[in-house]
Amino acid sequence: MKRREFVKLGAGAAALGLGASQFAKPAIAQKKIEWKMQMTWAKNSPVLATGAETVASYITKASGGRLTVKLYAAGEIAPPLQVMDTVADGGLEMGHGYPPYWVGKLNAMNFLSPVPFGLTTQEQDAWYKFGGGEELAGKVYAQLGVKMFRSGNTSVQGFGWFNKELTSIDSFKGLKMRLGGLGARVLSAVGATPVAMPLGEVPQALQSGAIDGADFVGPVNDMAFGLHKLAKYYYWPGWVEPCGILDCFVNIKAYEALPDDLKEIVKGANEYANALVVNEFVAKNAIALKTMVEDHKVQIKLLDDDTLIALGRASNDVVNDVASKDALSRELFDSIIKFRETVIPYTNISELAFMKARMLNFPYGKKV
Amino acid sequence: MKRREFVKLGAGAAALGLGASQFAKPAIAQKKIEWKMQMTWAKNSPVLATGAETVASYITKASGGRLTVKLYAAGEIAPPLQVMDTVADGGLEMGHGYPPYWVGKLNAMNFLSPVPFGLTTQEQDAWYKFGGGEELAGKVYAQLGVKMFRSGNTSVQGFGWFNKELTSIDSFKGLKMRLGGLGARVLSAVGATPVAMPLGEVPQALQSGAIDGADFVGPVNDMAFGLHKLAKYYYWPGWVEPCGILDCFVNIKAYEALPDDLKEIVKGANEYANALVVNEFVAKNAIALKTMVEDHKVQIKLLDDDTLIALGRASNDVVNDVASKDALSRELFDSIIKFRETVIPYTNISELAFMKARMLNFPYGKKV
Repeated sequence: MKRREFVKLGAGAAALGLGASQFAKPAIAQKKIEWKMQMTWAKNSPVLATGAETVASYITKASGGRLTVKLYAAGEIAPPLQVMDTVADGGLEMGHGYPPYWVGKLNAMNFLSPVPFGLTTQEQDAWYKFGGGEELAGKVYAQLGVKMFRSGNTSVQGFGWFNKELTSIDSFKGLKMRLGGLGARVLSAVGATPVAMPLGEVPQALQSGAIDGADFVGPVNDMAFGLHKLAKYYYWPGWVEPCGILDCFVNIKAYEALPDDLKEIVKGANEYANALVVNEFVAKNAIALKTMVEDHKVQIKLLDDDTLIALGRASNDVVNDVASKDALSRELFDSIIKFRETVIPYTNISELAFMKARMLNFPYGKKV
Repeated sequence: MKRREFVKLGAGAAALGLGASQFAKPAIAQKKIEWKMQMTWAKNSPVLATGAETVASYITKASGGRLTVKLYAAGEIAPPLQVMDTVADGGLEMGHGYPPYWVGKLNAMNFLSPVPFGLTTQEQDAWYKFGGGEELAGKVYAQLGVKMFRSGNTSVQGFGWFNKELTSIDSFKGLKMRLGGLGARVLSAVGATPVAMPLGEVPQALQSGAIDGADFVGPVNDMAFGLHKLAKYYYWPGWVEPCGILDCFVNIKAYEALPDDLKEIVKGANEYANALVVNEFVAKNAIALKTMVEDHKVQIKLLDDDTLIALGRASNDVVNDVASKDALSRELFDSIIKFRETVIPYTNISELAFMKARMLNFPYGKKV
């Protein structure tokens, strides 16, 4: 119904003695907008789906139903990795995913993806809002034809699952590991063989020895998939993926057509989702880790310092190479490095020093 | 204007041939709600004010002006520490502050305040949403007659400023320090003298030797107040206040009278503010720390391990004593301790191990 038709109808109704509430309703109904959002992962994917679910439900509730977002899982409308193009083309109004999925479209996307030895989650979030990250992300996603919001964060991920011990950097020579992104390039640089493989093929590949190790996300997702039944060593720290933005991307025309209040609600929904996903990952990863160790006898291993130094050196080469490919990649990398150099001395005396202090030898929690 | 009058006016206007847009406006105006929110701190207080400013502006924008929140600074309507009572009584619809300000009203408030050697900010946020914190906070604030939202977090604060070095736990004997909350009780337990003193009196007290040290928040606030000009040693880690919720509290009747969509907007506003405050603290504390050290020659000091162990033992006694005072305090403390015990092994292999790994000896950021 067009506005002109409504005016005629409204005035007519009033002339017939109908009350304001009766002819106000069509005006509200007329403004109802229905959006479709598809995730890049399956329905009920632990924690990963929380971001999209929160965005959809918050927008629907906070707008009083003026903008409803119906949520679809991977494949329901578009194949998972087609979600970006489908949103850009208007086949979906919104998508929810993970920047590494779009690296093939644009090299600069590597620096909105996890960067080996880069920022912690708390630092990345601070960089995003107060270090120029949001504006740079806007530039990157504009090149894909969409408006982007941060909408979750994996927080630091595990390094991966192995059936053999990694005792030095020599253990990486010839190591076949399922790993993508910048981490895969680092593996190559230290003599390992990164393998691109759908997660579904990992169980058989680990059992047959086609791969020696695999990465997925962190304790809660890895256990839900059953990786703890396929490998006995779970290696940390997560030098490959110390943080990992989840992205919500919106068709630009659909977004621009929204009135200002609904734009604000879309923004708020994503900020809410962003925080909630991290909260849930921290809480549920902690529980999953405890269960793995206590009930499933998974052995948690930390890479030794010399191995980490070798991986650090290789990572520096890789990130510099990838940053040198184009101006936008360089701009993003320089922004991250500048922030990292400023924030690390602060993180070291604040978060890091506190985390170390509370591990010193004193009782805590029970009266002694 | 009452609805009945509007209906008459609207119908009359329509009968006179006026368009829908003209008589639709009063219907919207009629629903406008105006709230007042007062902060417990001064206008433009660095970062601390961001929480309240974000809540006010987001609600106003996301509601399309149906709910406008006008922001007042400390003292504009009520004295800072009267804000809670004023909100409970309906003299203000909203307040924005810091749980330690309300400890005198309710002992359990100590456990929504910073807890020495307790949780990191990321852990506290996770506990709040997925460890029972939000429900417990709801119980605590309900006893003060208000609805509460988390609405910012100081993140880990500095320990404090001193003009003499703290070389062992013996340095705390007779030490006079401006410090409040649970940390003050720990100081007493190790032979120091905590001093309750308004921040404005700190400069003269430090200069006259009436106090030997003082705490405020962290680098950005401490430097804005000028503490770096009054003392030369800035001590860390922030064992007293490893995290610190900022609270937004709402008059219950005013909140319950909101339609569901505005309730959702109020919730979203606080989640947005909560994240933004932490982001800003991390980014700006890092810059302030750099400025202090490079331009003002502040000496950053870390308490040694033996001193921290002594403070840890005393902290354990204090938090157990405070928890034993009443059932609600016990419930909160037990919830925090349970979460802490589960999350620490995870934090240690994830966040802590990563932060240590990236400090190993390898170049990063520039091509070598």
